Amino acid sequence: MNNFGDEMYSLMERLFPICRSLTGNGNRKTLNILKEYIPIDIKEEPSGKKVFDWEIPNEWNIKDAYVKDNNGVKVIDFKKNNLHLVGYSEPFEGEMNLKELNDHLFSLPDQPDLIPYVTSYYEKRWGFCLSDNQRKNLKEGIYEVKIDSTLEPGHLTYGELIINGKSDEEIFFSTYICHPSMANNELSGPVVTTFLADYILKSIEKPYYTYRFIFIPETIGSIVYISKHFKQLTKKVRAGYVITCIGDPGPFSYLKTRKEDQLVDRVSIHTLRHSKKKYKVYDFLARGSDERQYNAPGIDMPIGSLMRSKYGEYAEYHTSADNLNFVKPFSLLDSLNMYKSLINVFENNHIYKTTVLCEPQLGKRGLYPNISTKKTNEQVIDMMNIIAYCDGEKDLLWIAEKIDKPISSLSIIVDKLIDEGLLVWSD
Amino acid sequence: MNNFGDEMYSLMERLFPICRSLTGNGNRKTLNILKEYIPIDIKEEPSGKKVFDWEIPNEWNIKDAYVKDNNGVKVIDFKKNNLHLVGYSEPFEGEMNLKELNDHLFSLPDQPDLIPYVTSYYEKRWGFCLSDNQRKNLKEGIYEVKIDSTLEPGHLTYGELIINGKSDEEIFFSTYICHPSMANNELSGPVVTTFLADYILKSIEKPYYTYRFIFIPETIGSIVYISKHFKQLTKKVRAGYVITCIGDPGPFSYLKTRKEDQLVDRVSIHTLRHSKKKYKVYDFLARGSDERQYNAPGIDMPIGSLMRSKYGEYAEYHTSADNLNFVKPFSLLDSLNMYKSLINVFENNHIYKTTVLCEPQLGKRGLYPNISTKKTNEQVIDMMNIIAYCDGEKDLLWIAEKIDKPISSLSIIVDKLIDEGLLVWSD
Amino acid sequence: MNNFGDEMYSLMERLFPICRSLTGNGNRKTLNILKEYIPIDIKEEPSGKKVFDWEIPNEWNIKDAYVKDNNGVKVIDFKKNNLHLVGYSEPFEGEMNLKELNDHLFSLPDQPDLIPYVTSYYEKRWGFCLSDNQRKNLKEGIYEVKIDSTLEPGHLTYGELIINGKSDEEIFFSTYICHPSMANNELSGPVVTTFLADYILKSIEKPYYTYRFIFIPETIGSIVYISKHFKQLTKKVRAGYVITCIGDPGPFSYLKTRKEDQLVDRVSIHTLRHSKKKYKVYDFLARGSDERQYNAPGIDMPIGSLMRSKYGEYAEYHTSADNLNFVKPFSLLDSLNMYKSLINVFENNHIYKTTVLCEPQLGKRGLYPNISTKKTNEQVIDMMNIIAYCDGEKDLLWIAEKIDKPISSLSIIVDKLIDEGLLVWSD
Repeated sequence: MNNFGDEMYSLMERLFPICRSLTGNGNRKTLNILKEYIPIDIKEEPSGKKVFDWEIPNEWNIKDAYVKDNNGVKVIDFKKNNLHLVGYSEPFEGEMNLKELNDHLFSLPDQPDLIPYVTSYYEKRWGFCLSDNQRKNLKEGIYEVKIDSTLEPGHLTYGELIINGKSDEEIFFSTYICHPSMANNELSGPVVTTFLADYILKSIEKPYYTYRFIFIPETIGSIVYISKHFKQLTKKVRAGYVITCIGDPGPFSYLKTRKEDQLVDRVSIHTLRHSKKKYKVYDFLARGSDERQYNAPGIDMPIGSLMRSKYGEYAEYHTSADNLNFVKPFSLLDSLNMYKSLINVFENNHIYKTTVLCEPQLGKRGLYPNISTKKTNEQVIDMMNIIAYCDGEKDLLWIAEKIDKPISSLSIIVDKLIDEGLLVWSD
Repeated sequence: MNNFGDEMYSLMERLFPICRSLTGNGNRKTLNILKEYIPIDIKEEPSGKKVFDWEIPNEWNIKDAYVKDNNGVKVIDFKKNNLHLVGYSEPFEGEMNLKELNDHLFSLPDQPDLIPYVTSYYEKRWGFCLSDNQRKNLKEGIYEVKIDSTLEPGHLTYGELIINGKSDEEIFFSTYICHPSMANNELSGPVVTTFLADYILKSIEKPYYTYRFIFIPETIGSIVYISKHFKQLTKKVRAGYVITCIGDPGPFSYLKTRKEDQLVDRVSIHTLRHSKKKYKVYDFLARGSDERQYNAPGIDMPIGSLMRSKYGEYAEYHTSADNLNFVKPFSLLDSLNMYKSLINVFENNHIYKTTVLCEPQLGKRGLYPNISTKKTNEQVIDMMNIIAYCDGEKDLLWIAEKIDKPISSLSIIVDKLIDEGLLVWSD
Repeated sequence: MNNFGDEMYSLMERLFPICRSLTGNGNRKTLNILKEYIPIDIKEEPSGKKVFDWEIPNEWNIKDAYVKDNNGVKVIDFKKNNLHLVGYSEPFEGEMNLKELNDHLFSLPDQPDLIPYVTSYYEKRWGFCLSDNQRKNLKEGIYEVKIDSTLEPGHLTYGELIINGKSDEEIFFSTYICHPSMANNELSGPVVTTFLADYILKSIEKPYYTYRFIFIPETIGSIVYISKHFKQLTKKVRAGYVITCIGDPGPFSYLKTRKEDQLVDRVSIHTLRHSKKKYKVYDFLARGSDERQYNAPGIDMPIGSLMRSKYGEYAEYHTSADNLNFVKPFSLLDSLNMYKSLINVFENNHIYKTTVLCEPQLGKRGLYPNISTKKTNEQVIDMMNIIAYCDGEKDLLWIAEKIDKPISSLSIIVDKLIDEGLLVWSD
């Protein structure tokens, strides 16, 4: 048994302490660690660049941040947990009383033990996040605030890996690298994506599809990437996923594309159904990540998202409780395997056509019993059904659904029929 | 609170005593009263004119009609209730015994207190209608019958009002003015239609659609009107209603178009569903009025009918019990308001397209919170959904149905996005 | 009352003893008996001829076959029941012990009283079938085996009857004549088919459709026939049936075409539903006879199969229990009548179009009551519905389904409207 679950978990442990954001050195560091595993290209785009309706923001870097009380004790300390600082906080240094400080504090009264995750990318602001319990302990007095950050023209950094297949049709995977120390959302995403890319590189000899993997900051990153590769993505991508929230032990969740009936929707639901595992299917109305950009009108990329517990649906989401205890090696492995299954379905699903009119004579090829009996065995029935329905219009997935079998169990038969010259690709 | 309910009821009280039919002075009088409210054109077509498979019948006018018994007592008297006379009765004067008279009498054994409504437009005939109780009291003896009517070449009279909109695409309303003293079927129809036209004239500044209202005798009137405006109606009418049976306190009834999935069907059912009022939906198989002509093959106008208690479905229908007690000012007002809602849906429902690729940056326009939080508010979600689904193919109604909101609640958001230059009309 | 049930049963009694197979004199004899009833052409194709992926096998004829025990007693005797011999057994003569003999014996442990039906068309082999009880009684010892068969180049024989209609569009019936003594599968098939063809010849004066009937050996026969008439069949056949398993008292079974929504599927299910008889509908996945070839990709003939108890679904199937006791004259008659009903639906189902715009004036033609009443009678409603929906796009069957009436009840009205010049064919 391989130990991919543990390996992924170890990678996540390395990445966890790094403070990532839309931009900055934390992102560069993260991508460089991933590069130890798979040959990604690390690319940059400059601040201020117009991308569709947006503009790449200034680069943000952070050295230190804290709030000290009267006695010089750090009552909030970025170094203890990078969630304590509101993301993209501008540099600040000053003293103030508790009332003034409170205008800059964020906490969750309903989850009083947890530090919330808050950002302010496009409005200049500074702030601190802390647990509501901690906040209630703050006493009247003068506080010293220091945020040693920089927010200046720089770059947005992202990673890209393209694995060429026989076809220039693409399967597309997008994951994000812009959250500080949170494990399920987000680190499970880049970690599983990395190992999935590695699987294709090492285990699929000559893939049919070209596989594109990108590691970007959410929203602005996908907008940058789409604007840069508009023609290629809108013309060549046949299916894809946003990979996120994929490391917790919850059941799988599949979020459909905007059009709801695309190849990726059919493949995902088919595969989940035949996996015998628990899963939920969400409508595009429940979307929340980069599928928003990929599926936008005029872009129309057929991108879904396979998660475990969906963002917004688990209590730990966007808090300090989304930590390394919340994700499990076993779940990471299970998720990686599910994505491998999906890839195998894409690779095996084609439109086939029989090469002969009427049924072929299977008996002379040793594929059909040469003596009649009252019952025909199941594999022969599957073969006859494949032959009957491979009409050059329906894909193998359609046939698998029709006869209610996993497509994986039909691929072997298809290969046999191709070898016999009885089936050919029609797509 | 306005008093449209009472005003409509008063108008109905004025119109109630008039004896209307397919043709004749009662129809002229009715239209002239409506003209006091809205600027309808009163038009005429001559008897004998061929219209498709039909011919406009002679004009019928009636001064008096009665049956007197042995003692010269009027036992049936048109002047007491114009339902007593079979519609389009030819002139007649004569004496006869009860047996002979009985061949010309109509009553309802199952509803023995009520006078039925009977007509014989296309077969020359005369007759009287009376309650079954009254009929049973008629004794053997000689009766004197007099029908002082004329049935001669003349005209068919109808009213028309066209309110021009920005577009030459039309919303079409048809109501009928050919029944004698009955309140729900028919007077509620022309009365609500009149006030609806008045509403558009006074309250919708620059309507998108052109609105056409016609006041016609049933069947022959719609055939005359279609034959005269064939090209315009079949090319330009986008939706419409036959307005009838709209004044009683029963729940709403919507009768679908022949094709069942037209814009008017979608708009009507959406609006009824979100009204939180009770309603029933009928298939076109339950049709019975001029929608029969409008939806006929080759005409194919997408015309439904929004009623309250549908003709044929309430006991008072086509009897003397369909009187001023059966309709209520409140119901008339409620019906008028429902039709106003429908018009507002038509006016607001268009196909929109986003002007930018990917999601627009709403934050810089103050349309999106500039700080991240765990939950997004509902109006922002609606806005994001409108942006995600406005793909230049689906209309706003489709989106409203998709997100299960009344379209009225989305129009404000659409207007805001249009103002920001983020949405444009695509139809 | 006619006695077609008894007549069909008698014909079956004559055909039952004949030993049919893919080829041979039994088939010729069978077809010659059918020719006494209907004017079929008997045709032949030579052994060795290539047909698509297949080759016509050698002709098989059988004079005698038996197994004798030590004492010269025939313990298995083809002359007692032709199922005792494996179909297409090659000639053989020799002695062997029980163990060696057993390699050539077939029996059914689960149905120990019955002789199974076994064939080996495409693999040279010989064998005997017997009941499992009989087999258990065979004692150790030397057995004498004799199979006096020939398996040599010859012909494949089939029958064909074409009844020309006004149109060159075809309704196609296929039945098979390749099973030895079994009654439901197969003799009910050719027997009912023969009487159905006779019905069309004698009772339908000028059929609209051209009717094609073929009597073939299963699989190889349909492949031969399709390959010979490829263009005609794939272009002109509008609907059709494989007729088999149609003589037992079980409820009807309809097996759908591959595409599942063809005219024949709609007609069959409509007719069964309105017959008030019990029936089952099977998906194409349950197929098992020549519909496999007719519906194959590239052939795409819309052929279903109306059976009673479907092959493989009844215990007597492919055993000596599928005998003359299993089929009933009444069931044969009932089946014949159902096929007659189907033909009548095909003949009456066309796309019609009204000749006038708006509703025609039916009153002047005596087709509509000339006095108004509260209720309209049902036949008038049907007429109005036919007029409303005959739009030149939907066929009469669509309308019958829409108003939930048997199409047979509408044909009379359609004929009346055609006579009045109000409807015309549009297909």
